[in-house]
Amino acid sequence: MSGAPRSPGLASPRPLGEVRLARAALTYLAEPGDPVLGALLAVCDPAEVLAAIKADTPPEVSQIGLAGQIGRASRAALGRALARWRVRLPKLPADAGIADASRDGIRLVCPGDAEWPSVLDQLGPARPYALWLRGNADLRFACPRSVSVVGSRAATSYGVHVTGEIAADLGERGWAVVSGGAYGIDAAAHRGALAAEGVTIAVLACGVDYPYPAGHADLFAAICAQGLVVSEWPPGSRPARTRFLTRNRVIAALACGTVIVEAGERSGALNTARHAADLGKPLMAVPGPVTSAQSAGCHRIIREWSATCVTRAAEIIEMLSPLSTPDPLAPGGSPQPSRAVMLSPDDDAPCRDDLDADCARVLDALPARGGAGTSTIAVEAGVDLDTVLRCLGQLASLGFIERCDRGWRLRRHSRS
Amino acid sequence: MSGAPRSPGLASPRPLGEVRLARAALTYLAEPGDPVLGALLAVCDPAEVLAAIKADTPPEVSQIGLAGQIGRASRAALGRALARWRVRLPKLPADAGIADASRDGIRLVCPGDAEWPSVLDQLGPARPYALWLRGNADLRFACPRSVSVVGSRAATSYGVHVTGEIAADLGERGWAVVSGGAYGIDAAAHRGALAAEGVTIAVLACGVDYPYPAGHADLFAAICAQGLVVSEWPPGSRPARTRFLTRNRVIAALACGTVIVEAGERSGALNTARHAADLGKPLMAVPGPVTSAQSAGCHRIIREWSATCVTRAAEIIEMLSPLSTPDPLAPGGSPQPSRAVMLSPDDDAPCRDDLDADCARVLDALPARGGAGTSTIAVEAGVDLDTVLRCLGQLASLGFIERCDRGWRLRRHSRS
Repeated sequence: MSGAPRSPGLASPRPLGEVRLARAALTYLAEPGDPVLGALLAVCDPAEVLAAIKADTPPEVSQIGLAGQIGRASRAALGRALARWRVRLPKLPADAGIADASRDGIRLVCPGDAEWPSVLDQLGPARPYALWLRGNADLRFACPRSVSVVGSRAATSYGVHVTGEIAADLGERGWAVVSGGAYGIDAAAHRGALAAEGVTIAVLACGVDYPYPAGHADLFAAICAQGLVVSEWPPGSRPARTRFLTRNRVIAALACGTVIVEAGERSGALNTARHAADLGKPLMAVPGPVTSAQSAGCHRIIREWSATCVTRAAEIIEMLSPLSTPDPLAPGGSPQPSRAVMLSPDDDAPCRDDLDADCARVLDALPARGGAGTSTIAVEAGVDLDTVLRCLGQLASLGFIERCDRGWRLRRHSRS
Repeated sequence: MSGAPRSPGLASPRPLGEVRLARAALTYLAEPGDPVLGALLAVCDPAEVLAAIKADTPPEVSQIGLAGQIGRASRAALGRALARWRVRLPKLPADAGIADASRDGIRLVCPGDAEWPSVLDQLGPARPYALWLRGNADLRFACPRSVSVVGSRAATSYGVHVTGEIAADLGERGWAVVSGGAYGIDAAAHRGALAAEGVTIAVLACGVDYPYPAGHADLFAAICAQGLVVSEWPPGSRPARTRFLTRNRVIAALACGTVIVEAGERSGALNTARHAADLGKPLMAVPGPVTSAQSAGCHRIIREWSATCVTRAAEIIEMLSPLSTPDPLAPGGSPQPSRAVMLSPDDDAPCRDDLDADCARVLDALPARGGAGTSTIAVEAGVDLDTVLRCLGQLASLGFIERCDRGWRLRRHSRS
């Protein structure tokens, strides 16, 4: 991934405060989705939890509070968990090392950060401790108009073709495509979105700098340039079989809905489908020849899980549109609520009057006709490049603007 | 169709009484599904209706009774209907001619006849006035374990292949395959069932002796030998575009459920699908490549009409099995109820004690191990060949027996 262009602004690391540094450290010590750590973080400060692990002393939480959060877990289970996490202490980098990791275009995003996608809070105790990101898109602004498109690694030419068409069409219509970065359907989904100059997000089961699969180094570089590579594991982490399954819940949770394009009867894509269904998110599947084993999983979830049969991007968007309009910037579980952009109740379209000052300025800076590049807009709006990028992402996700050959332009309907 | 073997027994014509002769005549005079005639037949004797047409005088029914049956139809509408039917009077054969038509392996089946399938009564006023049949199967006994399998004439090789596999598998499992006798999916459905030595029923939009499509003369001969060719139109009738649409309701009504294998967005198969849905019968569709226009109709009814996505015969049978067990011999709208074979309430399986004497004798004649041919069974049971054929059909439809290499054998579960 050394070929990935440096992020021009969004990826410049924020200084890690004590809490964020602790969350970063926890991604080194505990596997994501650890129910004991999830429960602890719901009632304790991350820095206290980290200190407790280092001291090998359970953190100071009331028995009742802890029991209420971690359910059946006893003090003994907490002790075992501490021992489990302590195993990795010798490999935990020093604070300076962790800070180093969040450089070179890699950034840490924690609950409460502006870029934290509140949809992840739906995962409850299984919520990621933090996310490591690499790339130029804004995760929070991409999520409200995003679709997970996943499927078999052993895809057929039919599956690859159909995935590419659907992902490109989604990208052209301003929807971000979330997938897992694997060979086969995942790669076709990312490539289709990239071809349409859309945003695409690869959620990996290894570090965002770890070249797996090795053949996808160029693909990941292209994704970083135009979208995001995301991981719950710290930089340098290797993939593992169980990590793919753990990762799948994040693919399902980030997007408004999940589409399975090809999946054999035992494909890991069905695990992602299960997570989407469990989260109450729309689950869709693309049918294929009944003579193809790679479509058998799709047909089964249509028949048995009531997945919606979809054949093209327009049908996918039709399924998701009622869900994509609610306030994408609502604070959710964020302890530092930011100002929410309200949607006007009449037409479900975002209202210009509710944009924050920077976004309103950037929107005003776009020419009435034709498009403009990012730096032109920055000069016109009088804001720095970081802010322009953030605002453009937000305005695009709200449907005010869209990409064009010459950069960005107003969308017609937003001018009425 | 001159090459069709003569029916050995079932097709020998019953003498036509006055009522049956009148119903036969009505199939010459009125197009099937005529709502005024359907309403009239619900309250009048068919012979009276025929006499009224001949006399050009409305039949003697109370205004109130008629209004209740034919809804908005007024006395004027009845007059117009009489005029419509009288147009064909010059072409109506004499009684002897009609009786002649029901020879040569062609038979007339009317409501109330033993072979009348009571499921057709679900059509209400659109119920056929009578059916013309040709072939060796028993219509009433085939219907309780039957599936309509229909689709595009312009089928792809994929569609033909999948249809053949499914129909053969249905035939092997003792399910009759109902279809429309057309090129493409219909032909593949009939051929698949025939290949598995299963029963198949072609419901035509022309006379059962009319060679349409011409290329299917051999197919229809093979269907007659092993199943049935059925029509609402009298022998010699030509097909017409509207007749195919009228005919589709019978395809949907005869079977326990309907499967669409391939259908373009405007395929006539979707008309059959609509009838199945309107009748409250299970509607299923086989998916295909989303890149194939011939599968677009299938995908649409899965998505928009909640058709069940099915990929093989086992899934079709699973959908229908709860519906195939209710009393297949219940009198329904029959004015001459025959003795019903009751199902034992415990396990939904037909009970041996409720079989009529002939069936019980035929069942007892089957050897405990291995199979026996029809004539062997006739000798053993001491009944004539007609009766053996009828009883074997009934016993098979009730699940007591099944076909095998050497003829017929007991099904295992029936012996417990």
